[in-house]
Amino acid sequence: MEGMALSAGGLRTLPGYVVCSQVLGVTCVVITGVWMGHYRGGYAWDGSAQEFNVHPLCMVLGLVFLYGDAVLVYRVFRNENKRSVKILHALLHMMALIISIVGLVAAFDFHSSAKISHMYSLHSWCGMLTFVLFFLQWLLGLGFFLFPWASAPLRSWYLPLHVFFGLLLLAMSVGSCLLGITEKLLFSIMSTYSKFAAEGVLANILGLLLVCFGVVVGYVVTRDDFRRPPNPEEEALSVHFKTLSEGEIPSSP
Amino acid sequence: MEGMALSAGGLRTLPGYVVCSQVLGVTCVVITGVWMGHYRGGYAWDGSAQEFNVHPLCMVLGLVFLYGDAVLVYRVFRNENKRSVKILHALLHMMALIISIVGLVAAFDFHSSAKISHMYSLHSWCGMLTFVLFFLQWLLGLGFFLFPWASAPLRSWYLPLHVFFGLLLLAMSVGSCLLGITEKLLFSIMSTYSKFAAEGVLANILGLLLVCFGVVVGYVVTRDDFRRPPNPEEEALSVHFKTLSEGEIPSSP
Repeated sequence: MEGMALSAGGLRTLPGYVVCSQVLGVTCVVITGVWMGHYRGGYAWDGSAQEFNVHPLCMVLGLVFLYGDAVLVYRVFRNENKRSVKILHALLHMMALIISIVGLVAAFDFHSSAKISHMYSLHSWCGMLTFVLFFLQWLLGLGFFLFPWASAPLRSWYLPLHVFFGLLLLAMSVGSCLLGITEKLLFSIMSTYSKFAAEGVLANILGLLLVCFGVVVGYVVTRDDFRRPPNPEEEALSVHFKTLSEGEIPSSP
Repeated sequence: MEGMALSAGGLRTLPGYVVCSQVLGVTCVVITGVWMGHYRGGYAWDGSAQEFNVHPLCMVLGLVFLYGDAVLVYRVFRNENKRSVKILHALLHMMALIISIVGLVAAFDFHSSAKISHMYSLHSWCGMLTFVLFFLQWLLGLGFFLFPWASAPLRSWYLPLHVFFGLLLLAMSVGSCLLGITEKLLFSIMSTYSKFAAEGVLANILGLLLVCFGVVVGYVVTRDDFRRPPNPEEEALSVHFKTLSEGEIPSSP
Protein backbone atom coordinates (compact mmCIF):
# COMPACT_ATOMS: atom_id res chain seq x y z
CA MET A 1 0.00 0.00 0.00
CA GLU A 2 2.81 2.39 0.98
CA GLY A 3 4.58 1.54 -2.27
CA MET A 4 1.43 2.25 -4.29
CA ALA A 5 0.90 5.57 -2.45
CA LEU A 6 4.53 6.52 -3.15
CA SER A 7 4.09 5.68 -6.83
CA ALA A 8 0.81 7.67 -7.10
CA GLY A 9 2.51 10.55 -5.27
CA GLY A 10 5.35 10.48 -7.81
CA LEU A 11 2.87 10.48 -10.67
CA ARG A 12 1.27 13.68 -9.34
CA THR A 13 4.51 15.52 -10.17
CA LEU A 14 4.40 14.46 -13.87
CA PRO A 15 2.27 17.45 -15.07
CA GLY A 16 4.74 19.81 -13.37
CA TYR A 17 7.68 18.31 -15.27
CA VAL A 18 5.73 18.38 -18.56
CA VAL A 19 4.78 22.07 -18.09
CA CYS A 20 8.41 22.84 -17.19
CA SER A 21 9.63 21.10 -20.38
CA GLN A 22 7.16 23.09 -22.52
CA VAL A 23 8.13 26.42 -20.93
CA LEU A 24 11.81 25.59 -21.52
CA GLY A 25 11.20 24.43 -25.10
CA VAL A 26 9.14 27.49 -26.10
CA THR A 27 11.68 29.81 -24.42
CA CYS A 28 14.50 28.19 -26.44
CA VAL A 29 12.62 28.70 -29.72
CA VAL A 30 11.78 32.34 -28.80
CA ILE A 31 15.39 33.16 -27.76
CA THR A 32 16.72 31.64 -30.99
CA GLY A 33 14.18 33.71 -32.96
CA VAL A 34 15.16 36.90 -31.10
CA TRP A 35 18.90 36.18 -31.46
CA MET A 36 18.68 35.73 -35.22
CA GLY A 37 15.95 38.38 -35.69
CA HIS A 38 17.35 41.15 -33.50
CA TYR A 39 21.14 40.61 -33.42
CA ARG A 40 21.77 38.87 -36.77
CA GLY A 41 19.61 40.91 -39.16
CA GLY A 42 16.42 38.87 -39.49
CA TYR A 43 15.32 36.31 -42.04
CA ALA A 44 15.28 35.91 -45.84
CA TRP A 45 15.48 33.12 -48.47
CA ASP A 46 17.98 34.49 -50.97
CA GLY A 47 21.28 32.78 -50.17
CA SER A 48 22.32 35.66 -47.87
CA ALA A 49 23.35 35.57 -44.22
CA GLN A 50 19.67 36.18 -43.48
CA GLU A 51 18.86 32.85 -45.13
CA PHE A 52 21.42 31.22 -42.86
CA ASN A 53 19.46 32.63 -39.88
CA VAL A 54 16.60 30.26 -40.76
CA HIS A 55 18.96 27.34 -39.93
CA PRO A 56 19.28 27.76 -36.12
CA LEU A 57 15.58 28.55 -35.73
CA CYS A 58 14.50 25.43 -37.68
CA MET A 59 16.95 23.13 -35.91
CA VAL A 60 15.94 24.29 -32.40
CA LEU A 61 12.24 24.12 -33.31
CA GLY A 62 12.43 20.81 -35.21
CA LEU A 63 15.30 18.71 -33.94
CA VAL A 64 15.03 19.78 -30.28
CA PHE A 65 11.56 21.08 -29.33
CA LEU A 66 9.29 19.00 -31.58
CA TYR A 67 11.62 15.98 -31.28
CA GLY A 68 11.45 16.25 -27.47
CA ASP A 69 7.66 16.59 -27.54
CA ALA A 70 7.37 13.54 -29.80
CA VAL A 71 9.36 11.60 -27.20
CA LEU A 72 7.12 12.90 -24.38
CA VAL A 73 3.76 11.82 -25.87
CA TYR A 74 3.95 8.32 -24.32
CA ARG A 75 4.13 9.93 -20.86
CA VAL A 76 1.65 12.79 -21.47
CA PHE A 77 -1.03 10.52 -22.98
CA ARG A 78 -0.49 7.65 -20.56
CA ASN A 79 -4.02 6.27 -20.71
CA GLU A 80 -5.04 6.99 -24.30
CA ASN A 81 -5.26 4.31 -26.99
CA LYS A 82 -1.72 3.16 -27.78
CA ARG A 83 -2.15 3.20 -31.56
CA SER A 84 -3.34 6.84 -31.51
CA VAL A 85 -0.34 7.81 -29.38
CA LYS A 86 2.00 5.94 -31.77
CA ILE A 87 0.53 7.88 -34.72
CA LEU A 88 0.96 11.21 -32.85
CA HIS A 89 4.58 10.19 -32.02
CA ALA A 90 5.30 9.44 -35.71
CA LEU A 91 3.54 12.65 -36.92
CA LEU A 92 5.42 14.93 -34.51
CA HIS A 93 8.69 13.29 -35.60
CA MET A 94 7.68 13.79 -39.25
CA MET A 95 7.09 17.51 -38.58
CA ALA A 96 10.48 17.64 -36.80
CA LEU A 97 12.08 15.98 -39.85
CA ILE A 98 10.48 18.36 -42.39
CA ILE A 99 11.42 21.48 -40.38
CA SER A 100 14.98 20.12 -39.96
CA ILE A 101 15.27 19.61 -43.73
CA VAL A 102 14.27 23.27 -44.30
CA GLY A 103 16.93 24.27 -41.76
CA LEU A 104 19.59 22.13 -43.46
CA VAL A 105 18.74 23.53 -46.91
CA ALA A 106 19.09 27.09 -45.51
CA ALA A 107 22.62 26.36 -44.24
CA PHE A 108 23.75 24.60 -47.46
CA ASP A 109 22.23 27.38 -49.64
CA PHE A 110 24.08 30.08 -47.68
CA HIS A 111 27.38 28.16 -47.85
CA SER A 112 26.99 27.71 -51.64
CA SER A 113 26.17 31.41 -52.21
CA ALA A 114 29.03 32.60 -49.99
CA LYS A 115 31.42 30.01 -51.51
CA ILE A 116 32.13 28.46 -48.10
CA SER A 117 32.99 24.73 -48.02
CA HIS A 118 30.26 22.40 -46.80
CA MET A 119 30.61 19.93 -43.95
CA TYR A 120 34.04 20.86 -42.64
CA SER A 121 33.25 21.65 -38.99
CA LEU A 122 32.62 19.38 -36.01
CA HIS A 123 29.18 21.01 -35.72
CA SER A 124 28.32 19.94 -39.28
CA TRP A 125 29.65 16.40 -38.75
CA CYS A 126 27.73 15.91 -35.50
CA GLY A 127 24.61 17.65 -36.80
CA MET A 128 24.49 15.63 -40.02
CA LEU A 129 25.14 12.37 -38.16
CA THR A 130 22.26 13.23 -35.81
CA PHE A 131 19.93 14.05 -38.73
CA VAL A 132 20.79 10.86 -40.69
CA LEU A 133 20.40 8.62 -37.62
CA PHE A 134 17.11 10.39 -36.79
CA PHE A 135 15.78 9.77 -40.31
CA LEU A 136 16.82 6.07 -40.14
CA GLN A 137 15.29 5.72 -36.66
CA TRP A 138 12.02 7.25 -37.96
CA LEU A 139 11.91 4.84 -40.92
CA LEU A 140 12.69 1.82 -38.70
CA GLY A 141 10.11 2.97 -36.12
CA LEU A 142 7.48 3.20 -38.85
CA GLY A 143 8.33 -0.25 -40.22
CA PHE A 144 8.62 -2.01 -36.86
CA PHE A 145 5.85 -0.43 -34.78
CA LEU A 146 3.27 1.37 -36.93
CA PHE A 147 2.91 -1.05 -39.85
CA PRO A 148 2.43 -4.78 -39.31
CA TRP A 149 5.66 -5.71 -41.09
CA ALA A 150 7.66 -7.00 -38.11
CA SER A 151 6.97 -10.11 -36.02
CA ALA A 152 6.38 -9.74 -32.25
CA PRO A 153 9.86 -11.12 -31.27
CA LEU A 154 11.51 -8.73 -33.76
CA ARG A 155 9.55 -5.81 -32.25
CA SER A 156 10.58 -6.86 -28.72
CA TRP A 157 14.21 -7.03 -29.87
CA TYR A 158 14.12 -3.59 -31.49
CA LEU A 159 12.10 -1.69 -28.83
CA PRO A 160 14.95 -1.14 -26.29
CA LEU A 161 17.27 -0.09 -29.16
CA HIS A 162 14.62 2.38 -30.41
CA VAL A 163 14.30 3.86 -26.91
CA PHE A 164 18.11 4.02 -26.38
CA PHE A 165 18.76 5.68 -29.76
CA GLY A 166 15.76 7.98 -29.26
CA LEU A 167 17.30 9.45 -26.09
CA LEU A 168 20.81 9.41 -27.60
CA LEU A 169 19.55 11.42 -30.58
CA LEU A 170 17.90 13.98 -28.26
CA ALA A 171 21.29 14.40 -26.51
CA MET A 172 23.07 14.62 -29.89
CA SER A 173 20.54 17.22 -31.14
CA VAL A 174 21.08 19.40 -28.08
CA GLY A 175 24.87 18.89 -28.34
CA SER A 176 24.87 19.83 -32.05
CA CYS A 177 22.89 23.02 -31.26
CA LEU A 178 25.45 23.96 -28.61
CA LEU A 179 28.27 23.44 -31.13
CA GLY A 180 26.36 25.61 -33.61
CA ILE A 181 25.89 28.37 -31.00
CA THR A 182 29.65 28.35 -30.24
CA GLU A 183 30.55 28.46 -33.97
CA LYS A 184 28.08 31.27 -34.72
CA LEU A 185 29.33 33.38 -31.77
CA LEU A 186 33.01 32.95 -32.70
CA PHE A 187 32.28 33.80 -36.36
CA SER A 188 30.16 36.85 -35.45
CA ILE A 189 31.41 38.42 -32.21
CA MET A 190 34.88 36.90 -31.61
CA SER A 191 36.31 40.25 -30.38
CA THR A 192 33.50 41.10 -27.90
CA TYR A 193 32.47 37.59 -26.77
CA SER A 194 35.16 37.58 -24.06
CA LYS A 195 33.90 41.00 -22.87
CA PHE A 196 30.51 39.44 -22.07
CA ALA A 197 28.67 41.12 -24.97
CA ALA A 198 24.88 40.90 -24.51
CA GLU A 199 24.51 38.73 -27.63
CA GLY A 200 27.07 36.24 -26.29
CA VAL A 201 25.42 36.03 -22.88
CA LEU A 202 21.98 35.56 -24.49
CA ALA A 203 23.31 32.75 -26.71
CA ASN A 204 25.07 31.10 -23.74
CA ILE A 205 21.80 31.20 -21.78
CA LEU A 206 20.07 29.65 -24.80
CA GLY A 207 22.67 26.84 -24.67
CA LEU A 208 22.00 26.16 -20.98
CA LEU A 209 18.20 26.23 -21.52
CA LEU A 210 18.57 23.69 -24.36
CA VAL A 211 20.49 21.44 -21.96
CA CYS A 212 17.74 21.91 -19.33
CA PHE A 213 15.04 21.00 -21.88
CA GLY A 214 16.93 17.81 -22.78
CA VAL A 215 17.45 16.95 -19.11
CA VAL A 216 13.75 17.39 -18.17
CA VAL A 217 12.54 15.36 -21.19
CA GLY A 218 15.18 12.67 -20.49
CA TYR A 219 14.18 12.52 -16.81
CA VAL A 220 10.43 12.23 -17.54
CA VAL A 221 11.01 9.47 -20.11
CA THR A 222 13.40 7.38 -18.00
CA ARG A 223 11.69 7.72 -14.59
CA ASP A 224 10.16 4.36 -13.70
CA ASP A 225 6.92 5.51 -12.07
CA PHE A 226 6.08 7.78 -15.05
CA ARG A 227 5.99 4.76 -17.38
CA ARG A 228 2.79 4.08 -19.34
CA PRO A 229 0.67 1.40 -17.61
CA PRO A 230 0.34 -1.61 -19.96
CA ASN A 231 -3.26 -2.01 -21.15
CA PRO A 232 -4.98 -5.33 -20.28
CA GLU A 233 -4.93 -6.52 -23.90
CA GLU A 234 -1.18 -5.88 -24.30
CA GLU A 235 -0.49 -7.49 -20.89
CA ALA A 236 -2.45 -10.63 -21.79
CA LEU A 237 -0.56 -10.90 -25.07
CA SER A 238 2.78 -10.37 -23.35
CA VAL A 239 1.99 -12.97 -20.65
CA HIS A 240 0.86 -15.39 -23.35
CA PHE A 241 4.17 -14.82 -25.21
CA LYS A 242 6.16 -15.29 -21.99
CA THR A 243 4.28 -18.55 -21.29
CA LEU A 244 5.00 -19.85 -24.76
CA SER A 245 8.68 -18.91 -24.75
CA GLU A 246 9.70 -19.67 -21.16
CA GLY A 247 7.20 -22.37 -20.22
CA GLU A 248 5.96 -20.40 -17.19
CA ILE A 249 2.42 -20.47 -15.84
CA PRO A 250 1.00 -16.95 -15.76
CA SER A 251 0.22 -15.89 -12.19
CA SER A 252 -2.82 -13.85 -13.25
CA PRO A 253 -5.23 -14.20 -16.18
CA MET B 1 14.55 -21.67 -21.24
CA GLU B 2 14.69 -19.83 -24.55
CA GLY B 3 14.53 -16.52 -22.67
CA MET B 4 17.43 -17.58 -20.43
CA ALA B 5 19.48 -18.69 -23.43
CA LEU B 6 18.79 -15.35 -25.13
CA SER B 7 19.90 -13.49 -22.00
CA ALA B 8 23.10 -15.58 -21.65
CA GLY B 9 23.75 -15.04 -25.38
CA GLY B 10 23.42 -11.27 -24.86
CA LEU B 11 25.82 -11.41 -21.93
CA ARG B 12 28.47 -13.07 -24.11
CA THR B 13 28.71 -9.82 -26.10
CA LEU B 14 29.52 -7.73 -22.97
CA PRO B 15 33.34 -8.23 -23.14
CA GLY B 16 33.27 -7.09 -26.78
CA TYR B 17 31.53 -3.84 -25.85
CA VAL B 18 33.90 -3.28 -22.91
CA VAL B 19 36.99 -3.83 -25.10
CA CYS B 20 35.48 -1.49 -27.72
CA SER B 21 34.93 1.22 -25.06
CA GLN B 22 38.54 0.91 -23.86
CA VAL B 23 39.98 1.09 -27.38
CA LEU B 24 37.84 4.19 -28.06
CA GLY B 25 38.76 5.80 -24.73
CA VAL B 26 42.52 5.23 -25.10
CA THR B 27 42.38 6.44 -28.73
CA CYS B 28 40.66 9.67 -27.61
CA VAL B 29 43.35 10.33 -24.97
CA VAL B 30 46.16 9.58 -27.49
CA ILE B 31 44.64 11.81 -30.22
CA THR B 32 44.21 14.68 -27.72
CA GLY B 33 47.85 14.21 -26.64
CA VAL B 34 49.06 14.19 -30.27
CA TRP B 35 46.89 17.21 -31.18
CA MET B 36 48.26 19.35 -28.34
CA GLY B 37 51.78 17.87 -28.52
CA HIS B 38 52.32 17.91 -32.28
CA TYR B 39 50.08 20.71 -33.61
CA ARG B 40 49.87 23.10 -30.61
CA GLY B 41 53.48 23.18 -29.39
CA GLY B 42 53.56 20.66 -26.54
CA TYR B 43 53.20 21.08 -22.80
CA ALA B 44 54.52 23.37 -20.04
CA TRP B 45 53.41 24.80 -16.67
CA ASP B 46 54.35 28.47 -16.95
CA GLY B 47 51.12 30.30 -17.82
CA SER B 48 51.88 30.03 -21.56
CA ALA B 49 49.75 28.53 -24.35
CA GLN B 50 51.65 25.31 -23.64
CA GLU B 51 50.18 25.29 -20.14
CA PHE B 52 46.73 25.63 -21.70
CA ASN B 53 47.48 22.45 -23.69
CA VAL B 54 47.39 20.50 -20.41
CA HIS B 55 43.67 21.41 -20.14
CA PRO B 56 42.20 19.34 -23.04
CA LEU B 57 44.40 16.35 -22.19
CA CYS B 58 43.35 16.33 -18.52
CA MET B 59 39.64 16.82 -19.29
CA VAL B 60 39.52 14.00 -21.87
CA LEU B 61 41.53 11.70 -19.59
CA GLY B 62 39.70 12.60 -16.36
CA LEU B 63 36.18 13.76 -17.12
CA VAL B 64 35.57 11.40 -20.05
CA PHE B 65 37.81 8.29 -20.03
CA LEU B 66 38.24 7.70 -16.27
CA TYR B 67 34.69 8.91 -15.58
CA GLY B 68 33.36 6.44 -18.17
CA ASP B 69 35.43 3.61 -16.73
CA ALA B 70 34.19 4.40 -13.21
CA VAL B 71 30.64 4.06 -14.56
CA LEU B 72 31.51 0.74 -16.26
CA VAL B 73 32.90 -1.06 -13.19
CA TYR B 74 29.46 -2.33 -12.10
CA ARG B 75 29.14 -4.16 -15.45
CA VAL B 76 32.78 -5.30 -15.77
CA PHE B 77 32.94 -6.72 -12.22
CA ARG B 78 29.45 -8.19 -12.24
CA ASN B 79 30.12 -11.00 -9.79
CA GLU B 80 32.68 -9.45 -7.46
CA ASN B 81 31.88 -8.28 -3.92
CA LYS B 82 29.64 -5.21 -4.19
CA ARG B 83 31.47 -3.17 -1.56
CA SER B 84 34.83 -3.65 -3.35
CA VAL B 85 33.25 -2.54 -6.64
CA LYS B 86 31.73 0.52 -4.91
CA ILE B 87 35.17 1.47 -3.56
CA LEU B 88 36.72 1.07 -7.03
CA HIS B 89 33.87 3.20 -8.50
CA ALA B 90 34.53 5.96 -5.93
CA LEU B 91 38.34 5.77 -6.37
CA LEU B 92 38.18 6.01 -10.18
CA HIS B 93 35.84 8.99 -9.84
CA MET B 94 38.26 10.56 -7.33
CA MET B 95 41.12 10.17 -9.84
CA ALA B 96 38.86 11.69 -12.53
CA LEU B 97 38.11 14.62 -10.18
CA ILE B 98 41.79 15.27 -9.32
CA ILE B 99 42.90 15.14 -12.97
CA SER B 100 40.00 17.45 -13.93
CA ILE B 101 41.06 19.95 -11.26
CA VAL B 102 44.60 20.00 -12.73
CA GLY B 103 43.01 20.60 -16.16
CA LEU B 104 40.84 23.45 -14.85
CA VAL B 105 43.81 25.12 -13.10
CA ALA B 106 45.78 24.96 -16.39
CA ALA B 107 43.00 26.79 -18.27
CA PHE B 108 42.49 29.46 -15.55
CA ASP B 109 46.29 30.00 -15.21
CA PHE B 110 46.65 30.53 -18.96
CA HIS B 111 43.69 32.95 -19.06
CA SER B 112 45.13 34.95 -16.14
CA SER B 113 48.63 35.16 -17.72
CA ALA B 114 47.23 36.14 -21.14
CA LYS B 115 44.76 38.61 -19.53
CA ILE B 116 41.77 36.81 -21.11
CA SER B 117 38.45 36.93 -19.20
CA HIS B 118 37.45 33.78 -17.38
CA MET B 119 34.16 31.95 -17.85
CA TYR B 120 32.68 33.90 -20.76
CA SER B 121 32.10 31.11 -23.29
CA LEU B 122 29.37 28.48 -23.55
CA HIS B 123 32.15 25.85 -23.29
CA SER B 124 33.25 27.27 -19.94
CA TRP B 125 29.67 27.52 -18.64
CA CYS B 126 28.80 23.93 -19.64
CA GLY B 127 32.17 22.57 -18.55
CA MET B 128 32.05 24.24 -15.12
CA LEU B 129 28.43 23.16 -14.60
CA THR B 130 29.47 19.58 -15.44
CA PHE B 131 32.43 19.72 -13.05
CA VAL B 132 30.41 21.20 -10.14
CA LEU B 133 27.56 18.69 -10.59
CA PHE B 134 30.13 15.85 -10.85
CA PHE B 135 31.78 16.97 -7.58
CA LEU B 136 28.36 17.18 -5.83
CA GLN B 137 27.33 13.78 -7.23
CA TRP B 138 30.60 12.28 -5.96
CA LEU B 139 30.07 13.72 -2.45
CA LEU B 140 26.43 12.54 -2.37
CA GLY B 141 27.43 9.09 -3.66
CA LEU B 142 30.02 8.82 -0.91
CA GLY B 143 27.55 9.88 1.77
CA PHE B 144 24.62 7.78 0.56
CA PHE B 145 26.27 4.55 -0.61
CA LEU B 146 29.78 4.13 0.79
CA PHE B 147 29.35 5.38 4.35
CA PRO B 148 26.48 4.19 6.53
CA TRP B 149 24.98 7.68 6.88
CA ALA B 150 21.77 7.19 4.90
CA SER B 151 18.81 4.95 5.76
CA ALA B 152 17.74 2.18 3.32
CA PRO B 153 14.62 4.07 2.05
CA LEU B 154 16.75 7.21 1.50
CA ARG B 155 19.28 5.12 -0.48
CA SER B 156 16.48 3.58 -2.58
CA TRP B 157 15.11 7.07 -3.27
CA TYR B 158 18.50 8.44 -4.31
CA LEU B 159 19.78 5.47 -6.37
CA PRO B 160 17.79 6.16 -9.60
CA LEU B 161 18.72 9.87 -9.37
CA HIS B 162 22.42 8.92 -8.95
CA VAL B 163 22.20 6.68 -12.03
CA PHE B 164 20.32 9.31 -14.11
CA PHE B 165 22.72 12.13 -13.19
CA GLY B 166 25.70 9.81 -13.69
CA LEU B 167 24.75 9.21 -17.34
CA LEU B 168 23.70 12.85 -17.82
CA LEU B 169 27.13 13.99 -16.59
CA LEU B 170 28.87 11.61 -18.99
CA ALA B 171 26.86 13.18 -21.85
CA MET B 172 27.63 16.68 -20.53
CA SER B 173 31.35 15.85 -20.25
CA VAL B 174 31.48 14.64 -23.85
CA GLY B 175 29.41 17.66 -24.98
CA SER B 176 31.71 20.10 -23.13
CA CYS B 177 34.76 18.49 -24.79
CA LEU B 178 33.16 18.92 -28.22
CA LEU B 179 32.49 22.61 -27.45
CA GLY B 180 36.12 22.95 -26.35
CA ILE B 181 37.36 21.32 -29.59
CA THR B 182 35.25 23.74 -31.68
CA GLU B 183 36.51 26.76 -29.69
CA LYS B 184 40.15 25.70 -29.91
CA LEU B 185 39.93 25.09 -33.68
CA LEU B 186 38.26 28.45 -34.38
CA PHE B 187 40.81 30.28 -32.20
CA SER B 188 43.79 28.47 -33.78
CA ILE B 189 43.01 27.62 -37.42
CA MET B 190 39.95 29.72 -38.35
CA SER B 191 41.32 30.48 -41.85
CA THR B 192 42.26 26.87 -42.78
CA TYR B 193 39.56 24.92 -40.90
CA SER B 194 37.12 25.30 -43.82
CA LYS B 195 39.85 24.03 -46.18
CA PHE B 196 39.91 20.70 -44.31
CA ALA B 197 43.31 21.32 -42.68
CA ALA B 198 44.74 18.07 -41.21
CA GLU B 199 44.56 19.47 -37.66
CA GLY B 200 40.87 20.29 -38.09
CA VAL B 201 40.03 16.85 -39.49
CA LEU B 202 41.98 15.16 -36.66
CA ALA B 203 40.14 17.21 -34.03
CA ASN B 204 36.75 16.50 -35.69
CA ILE B 205 37.56 12.76 -35.64
CA LEU B 206 38.46 13.12 -31.95
CA GLY B 207 35.02 14.69 -31.41
CA LEU B 208 33.23 11.78 -33.10
CA LEU B 209 35.31 9.20 -31.17
CA LEU B 210 34.40 10.93 -27.89
CA VAL B 211 30.72 10.62 -28.87
CA CYS B 212 31.26 6.92 -29.72
CA PHE B 213 32.93 6.31 -26.32
CA GLY B 214 29.95 7.93 -24.56
CA VAL B 215 27.48 5.91 -26.65
CA VAL B 216 29.17 2.54 -25.95
CA VAL B 217 29.47 3.24 -22.20
CA GLY B 218 25.85 4.48 -22.09
CA TYR B 219 24.64 1.39 -23.98
CA VAL B 220 26.50 -1.07 -21.73
CA VAL B 221 25.20 0.62 -18.57
CA THR B 222 21.56 0.88 -19.67
CA ARG B 223 21.18 -2.53 -21.39
CA ASP B 224 18.92 -4.67 -19.21
CA ASP B 225 20.66 -8.05 -19.62
CA PHE B 226 24.08 -6.55 -18.75
CA ARG B 227 22.80 -5.56 -15.29
CA ARG B 228 24.61 -6.89 -12.24
CA PRO B 229 22.82 -9.94 -10.79
CA PRO B 230 21.65 -9.12 -7.24
CA ASN B 231 23.52 -11.21 -4.66
CA PRO B 232 21.37 -13.54 -2.51
CA GLU B 233 21.86 -11.42 0.63
CA GLU B 234 20.74 -8.19 -1.12
CA GLU B 235 17.80 -10.01 -2.73
CA ALA B 236 16.63 -11.40 0.63
CA LEU B 237 16.82 -7.91 2.14
CA SER B 238 14.94 -6.39 -0.78
CA VAL B 239 12.21 -9.08 -0.67
CA HIS B 240 11.94 -8.56 3.09
CA PHE B 241 11.56 -4.81 2.58
CA LYS B 242 8.92 -5.36 -0.14
CA THR B 243 6.98 -7.73 2.16
CA LEU B 244 7.01 -5.19 4.96
CA SER B 245 6.01 -2.24 2.80
CA GLU B 246 3.48 -3.78 0.42
CA GLY B 247 2.17 -6.70 2.47
CA GLU B 248 3.06 -9.21 -0.26
CA ILE B 249 4.13 -12.81 0.32
CA PRO B 250 7.51 -13.42 -1.30
CA SER B 251 7.23 -16.06 -4.02
CA SER B 252 10.74 -17.44 -3.35
CA PRO B 253 12.92 -17.49 -0.23
